[in-house]
Amino acid sequence: MLDIGTLFSNTESGLQMLVQSVRRASAILRELSHGGPRLGVTELADRIGVAKPTVHALLRTLEAEGLVAQDSETGKYRLGPGLLQLGNAYLDTHELRTRSLTWADSLAKRSGEAVWVAVLTGDHVLVVHHAFRPEGSLQIHEVGASIPWSTCALGKAIVAFGPAADRDRLLAGELPVLTGTSITDPAELAAQLDQVATTGYGVEDQESTLGDAGIAAPVFDRSAEVVGAIGVVGPVERVLADPARQELAVMVRETARMLSRDLGAARTPARRGA
Amino acid sequence: MLDIGTLFSNTESGLQMLVQSVRRASAILRELSHGGPRLGVTELADRIGVAKPTVHALLRTLEAEGLVAQDSETGKYRLGPGLLQLGNAYLDTHELRTRSLTWADSLAKRSGEAVWVAVLTGDHVLVVHHAFRPEGSLQIHEVGASIPWSTCALGKAIVAFGPAADRDRLLAGELPVLTGTSITDPAELAAQLDQVATTGYGVEDQESTLGDAGIAAPVFDRSAEVVGAIGVVGPVERVLADPARQELAVMVRETARMLSRDLGAARTPARRGA
Repeated sequence: MLDIGTLFSNTESGLQMLVQSVRRASAILRELSHGGPRLGVTELADRIGVAKPTVHALLRTLEAEGLVAQDSETGKYRLGPGLLQLGNAYLDTHELRTRSLTWADSLAKRSGEAVWVAVLTGDHVLVVHHAFRPEGSLQIHEVGASIPWSTCALGKAIVAFGPAADRDRLLAGELPVLTGTSITDPAELAAQLDQVATTGYGVEDQESTLGDAGIAAPVFDRSAEVVGAIGVVGPVERVLADPARQELAVMVRETARMLSRDLGAARTPARRGA
Repeated sequence: MLDIGTLFSNTESGLQMLVQSVRRASAILRELSHGGPRLGVTELADRIGVAKPTVHALLRTLEAEGLVAQDSETGKYRLGPGLLQLGNAYLDTHELRTRSLTWADSLAKRSGEAVWVAVLTGDHVLVVHHAFRPEGSLQIHEVGASIPWSTCALGKAIVAFGPAADRDRLLAGELPVLTGTSITDPAELAAQLDQVATTGYGVEDQESTLGDAGIAAPVFDRSAEVVGAIGVVGPVERVLADPARQELAVMVRETARMLSRDLGAARTPARRGA
């Protein structure tokens, strides 16, 4: 008789199956997050190219773990509450995020604008903290939002000070168009990155959202590597008007430097490729 | 030769292995979220009781999916950014949450207090939306926070109007002590739930956080089932002082009723066990 336990943990094939199972479970979660809020077993099986009994077993397991939930009315599946708890745990255990809370708040107060803290993941920046602008009009909490790196000040700040290999790879990759001012010419973007590396801050002029501008600076840790960026986001009329633009840039760069010190970075800011 | 593909998808043992793989991957994520921010392969293997090669394969796969990340300095693992994206997708596809945004904002403006929207998951409520109180002092965004149901107004509101079987099970379960006023006597809590079912709102008097009080009302959907609760949270001196308490209770109940209508609920609020 086949010894499943031994096959499972100790053979190459067993490990391959393990890897495949987790990949498929992850594919289901991705599909539910992008493909549609509620999907049935058959739809999911079609989309990820896996047999229905397998998809069904994966869904039941993910449901038991709280990672998907079944709609009582339709029987279809959607993402589960366990993901929100895990996402929250990611934030709570993220050193840049936890250290940035008071710095972001103080920058929002000084600047009168919203403040975002972000990390680079793949070719997008992921917002890990959002301090609302002090005046209390309706604002949507943007933590978890994902923005193409090339269209925002945060992404430019991170890439300009990141490893040269990452910069080259990202410049060679897709440069999406979100608005009429999104930059799609790698040479133009490369020139901007050089400027960011010189001035210490990146600028977005409505490249991801019409009407919005941003100014962001890189954050370093004790290993002198860039770990993310912090910056202000607000109406272009306020953020990029002189002399506000210069004043905001100084505040943002100072805040990024203090936050970096808090993360153990050395006094002298690192240079690109350092 | 053993046909892995066939075994994998079509046999009982294959499906068992699939289920076990996903459970173990999920156990790793849980361990990283509760057990410590950064764990190595050996620590994880010990904690979840699985052989090191298996844990290593799971971690590599989870890392490729963005669900865990490896610390470049220590080689240890932590939760990955993909979890924040999935948690955010959970919120974006959550009908109660998306429908509650403007209602919560308007309740925060009228009441001058912070507003939370929550769902019941297991024996905890999970905060899915948080509208800051209008005055702009430092506030921590509590979306993703998990609170024992018996210690907060939101939990009482949901359980009082939920199925009788859930209520009985939860009353028979653990009633944790978070503060000196947390209720641990099932009979006392049952009496409170009866009162909530009569008045239409639940009250917390510093039972989860010293100094904080809450007032919350249940939210129903088109199937007349309770899907969550909405309520105000603030200093006990403001929230539970007369006549503020009565005024807040009326606002909260009205808002919950409007939000329920928005979710397709009938005009007449459902009764417990309905």
